[in-house]
Amino acid sequence: MTRTLGILGGGQLGRMLALAAAPLGVRCRAWDPSPSACAGDVCELVTAEWDDAAALERFCDGVDAITCEFENVPVDLLKACGERATLAPGARSFAVASDRLDEKQFLEGQGVPVAAHRPVDDAASLRDAVEALGLPAVLKTRRFGYDGKGQTVLRSADDVEQIARELDNRPRILEAMVDFECELSTVAVRNRDGEVRAFPLVRNEHRGGILYETTAPAGVANELEESGRAHAVRVLGALDHVGVLTIEWFLCDGRLIGNEIAPRVHNSGHWTIDGAWCGQFEQHVRAVMGLPLGRIDVRTPSVMLNLVGGAPDTGAVLAAQGARLHDYAKSPRPGRKIGHVTCLMGDGAADERGVDRVRAMVDAAWRGNEP
Amino acid sequence: MTRTLGILGGGQLGRMLALAAAPLGVRCRAWDPSPSACAGDVCELVTAEWDDAAALERFCDGVDAITCEFENVPVDLLKACGERATLAPGARSFAVASDRLDEKQFLEGQGVPVAAHRPVDDAASLRDAVEALGLPAVLKTRRFGYDGKGQTVLRSADDVEQIARELDNRPRILEAMVDFECELSTVAVRNRDGEVRAFPLVRNEHRGGILYETTAPAGVANELEESGRAHAVRVLGALDHVGVLTIEWFLCDGRLIGNEIAPRVHNSGHWTIDGAWCGQFEQHVRAVMGLPLGRIDVRTPSVMLNLVGGAPDTGAVLAAQGARLHDYAKSPRPGRKIGHVTCLMGDGAADERGVDRVRAMVDAAWRGNEP
Repeated sequence: MTRTLGILGGGQLGRMLALAAAPLGVRCRAWDPSPSACAGDVCELVTAEWDDAAALERFCDGVDAITCEFENVPVDLLKACGERATLAPGARSFAVASDRLDEKQFLEGQGVPVAAHRPVDDAASLRDAVEALGLPAVLKTRRFGYDGKGQTVLRSADDVEQIARELDNRPRILEAMVDFECELSTVAVRNRDGEVRAFPLVRNEHRGGILYETTAPAGVANELEESGRAHAVRVLGALDHVGVLTIEWFLCDGRLIGNEIAPRVHNSGHWTIDGAWCGQFEQHVRAVMGLPLGRIDVRTPSVMLNLVGGAPDTGAVLAAQGARLHDYAKSPRPGRKIGHVTCLMGDGAADERGVDRVRAMVDAAWRGNEP
Repeated sequence: MTRTLGILGGGQLGRMLALAAAPLGVRCRAWDPSPSACAGDVCELVTAEWDDAAALERFCDGVDAITCEFENVPVDLLKACGERATLAPGARSFAVASDRLDEKQFLEGQGVPVAAHRPVDDAASLRDAVEALGLPAVLKTRRFGYDGKGQTVLRSADDVEQIARELDNRPRILEAMVDFECELSTVAVRNRDGEVRAFPLVRNEHRGGILYETTAPAGVANELEESGRAHAVRVLGALDHVGVLTIEWFLCDGRLIGNEIAPRVHNSGHWTIDGAWCGQFEQHVRAVMGLPLGRIDVRTPSVMLNLVGGAPDTGAVLAAQGARLHDYAKSPRPGRKIGHVTCLMGDGAADERGVDRVRAMVDAAWRGNEP
């Protein structure tokens, strides 16, 4: 029987959730303040501000479950949705993930190593935090940060004094700068029965704070793989999380250091649409709809390249035979994610050449992001 | 840049075309007389009868290309669409495929072996045809037949005389009964530049005239594979066909005998969504939008099972780890295709057990189709 899933947010994550849900017989209805939200191409779209009471009823009417494609959902809205349908993941996952201090403390409580950190509320606590952690260090807003937004690296006493003068009253956190070998992530999913499955660790490369490339699998030692999986089981379990959750890691001295969690499908999991047996979007839909989880192992090693700011010519990308294009049908502008390409690496040398060709095209498009 | 594809017909083929088009940045708009056409869940739907002139303009407004998900499109409509946008495939492919006599004569003209056949217009020509071809033979309407509809097997002189008395004035064709070892099909695609690619031959099993199961690849000898591909190149080329076209074969004495062609994506190609690198729906969209064709080889051997009449429990199907469900979100009724399951056979014995479990569930649902 056809069932309906409500999605708070109608961006590319909502769009890819809807595309994954349809073959399961699950209709989606996305809610987004923007009438041009790209999920609207592939499912019903409710266009309204988040505090629109009539839209809430329209959105919730007849839905079997509600999920979110972004983490900074207004708390009252989550509560209202939870009263009208099964909300998955629950409010606790969002509360923890939307505040960098709560997030770090939660991870520590679950035995996940994190960078040394101090809360910063004003100039005095900033100076205390720098005193305790040393320099360089990263000052971040506690809330509403993503893709490197709201982050400043402090390298010198001058940096500290300048920032101290400019501080507004938003709560912040100062984190010791982690000298990492590379960035990794774990995309994991937990169902209503508490079963957790995790995709293998992947390696992420960022440019200007935005994900540029993901290599899947990361190809790390088994013990590291096992450590990532074990942390994921504890983290998702402690949150009673239902659906996909992503943990971003720094790799330091052969150890995973938790950087942040996203209580949702994640850019570093986009390769799974093409490279896994059952992608992260389908896994999420299965979990929130109370369906069995899918195979979580790698089907074909993959390299995912983000299209940010501009897009290469569609025909040129598709001419690379291992390339799988995902165009979000969004208008390009600098810094905006408008698509991704997953290069499947099943065919040896030919695929290596293919990914090099695609990377060159993607690089040319990225240049539009530079000031 | 986002482009738009118009699809005449909004059934499951239109739905799967739209799902494959979205990641390429191609928006779809389907036209169907039924407001509940299932493509409407995943793309814009124009609901109108085929002769609605205002709907024609609404449907064609801003589309870059127009294609069809069924072959019996009114000729005037095809013509009108072709005047307003790029129509692919062209009217000739539909003309040939929609009349069984024209189809057989066309295939013979391309050097494709077909069953002996005679036109039947009345009782006299029926008796002449039986005289020429012998019994048993199959009497088929020349137009509007699919899934075994409009077909009668004549086994005895009594059968012939009874049918001769009941004949209405629809043109028919009598075909010699082919004693085949199995049924196979070739799903091929041709782009605007004339390049043709063909998926490997697959083996099809029908029940009551409806496709029950497809095994991909069929696992036939190389010469047969090559013969199917060579026929496809000639057939698609002769039609100047752009998009996917399917040829259904009988295998007789180690030779391919052409049974019928469908100028479109085909049920026996559904396995390609999951089992190939680039599925038939995406290949079709690429071809009609003037984009490069994708890899056409098998990614994972597959068994596709049709859900006809009723659907097994979604959770039970998804619990089989190699099973990929495609629920068309249609109301079940006897004889109606409402979904399919592709079982990926990448994992040896476990997948064999999985496909057996899924087949048992599908069988139980099929029982609802029996009278």
